[in-house]
Amino acid sequence: MIKACIFDVFGTLVDWRASIAKEAQAILSPLDISLDWGAFADAWRDQYEPAMEEVRSGRLPFSKLDVLHRRNLDVILGAYGLDQVDEATRCHLNLAWHRLDAWPDVASGLNLLRQKYVLAPCSNGNISLMVGLARRNGFVWDAVLGAEVAHAYKPMPVVYTSAAAAFDLTPEQTLMVAAHSSDLAAAAAAGLRTAFVARPDEQGPGLGEKVPGTPVDYSVKSILELAEILCA
Amino acid sequence: MIKACIFDVFGTLVDWRASIAKEAQAILSPLDISLDWGAFADAWRDQYEPAMEEVRSGRLPFSKLDVLHRRNLDVILGAYGLDQVDEATRCHLNLAWHRLDAWPDVASGLNLLRQKYVLAPCSNGNISLMVGLARRNGFVWDAVLGAEVAHAYKPMPVVYTSAAAAFDLTPEQTLMVAAHSSDLAAAAAAGLRTAFVARPDEQGPGLGEKVPGTPVDYSVKSILELAEILCA
Repeated sequence: MIKACIFDVFGTLVDWRASIAKEAQAILSPLDISLDWGAFADAWRDQYEPAMEEVRSGRLPFSKLDVLHRRNLDVILGAYGLDQVDEATRCHLNLAWHRLDAWPDVASGLNLLRQKYVLAPCSNGNISLMVGLARRNGFVWDAVLGAEVAHAYKPMPVVYTSAAAAFDLTPEQTLMVAAHSSDLAAAAAAGLRTAFVARPDEQGPGLGEKVPGTPVDYSVKSILELAEILCA
Repeated sequence: MIKACIFDVFGTLVDWRASIAKEAQAILSPLDISLDWGAFADAWRDQYEPAMEEVRSGRLPFSKLDVLHRRNLDVILGAYGLDQVDEATRCHLNLAWHRLDAWPDVASGLNLLRQKYVLAPCSNGNISLMVGLARRNGFVWDAVLGAEVAHAYKPMPVVYTSAAAAFDLTPEQTLMVAAHSSDLAAAAAAGLRTAFVARPDEQGPGLGEKVPGTPVDYSVKSILELAEILCA
């Protein structure tokens, strides 16, 4: 009955926190800046939901996530007292979100799933960001769906339903895969089937969701485990 | 300077006429229908531009190409006096556009190009149609761009410029590849670079464009030849 799998990306497929911490250190420490780099990644990520809420509420017109990430970066560099960081460095650091590393099970799991299902990211990240992550980590997608195509941010229902519709599928024929219960609850409310992937270290060691906090159709520990179940 | 290649699909990458003629024959001849199948394909395709013009002019809200193809199919079945063709057959025949065969040089050319450039279709076909053609013919895309993402039909300039913008590129960094001078002239007017691919048999033997009728940056006889030039 399921024909397509669509994926949350930040946290579910890629380890944003360790990757951003590593990139921030590599880019800022040569400028004699020394920080708790994990906390810096957290601070940047903490601006993510409020920025998208500006768009969801209609206070800000739809802007792609790179634009919101840059606005958020400027906010936190100011909060850290790092106003000396120049424009070129800010641009380069902002694109660290295009260079995140995948969890080790993802590429093999997607390859297996793709033999039976059509696959797309359904992320709040923009298309070019998804292209960067796919190229870096060996993901092969049938299409890139999500916020930039829907012109709305999750958890707005249209992001999930328009992804299904782009594949000519009903929501019930489409499986949303995520490491976050809030994303899966919204997808289920929009009629999609859901799979929870545990990423227990997403927000730092031991600081990720270990079990789903909402009813789901599947609960697994990796994309490869999900693929083995769905392709059995 | 060129960072991405975007592609017209019908005629440029796939042989729509022979494929539609073959599908129509396979689906309709068991119903004791006998036609000039190439002429049937031409008649269906002849409804393509006028239907899109309804959208471009604003008389019809944006509808994906599958919807326009279906409306056009009903028109030509009526014109052929084939009102007896039932709903399920019409649905199946309409999706023949998802099952077109590629010209033989395309998959190898795209594979080579993808080593150096990001690639997407920039077609008036909808996302699911592009997914069907890619799966059937072994195309690997970085994203699916074009009409359904732009919510407009070529040759509207926004279709070309939004494809470049989705990759974070300027029009000048983006190469539009097509077998049709009108498509390339519109892309060039929107600031893109252009490559003409000769498909001399697109509309039947000897009935395709052999040379570009507009100034272009590259003129080649196959996608593989283009790849060899751009990857040299």
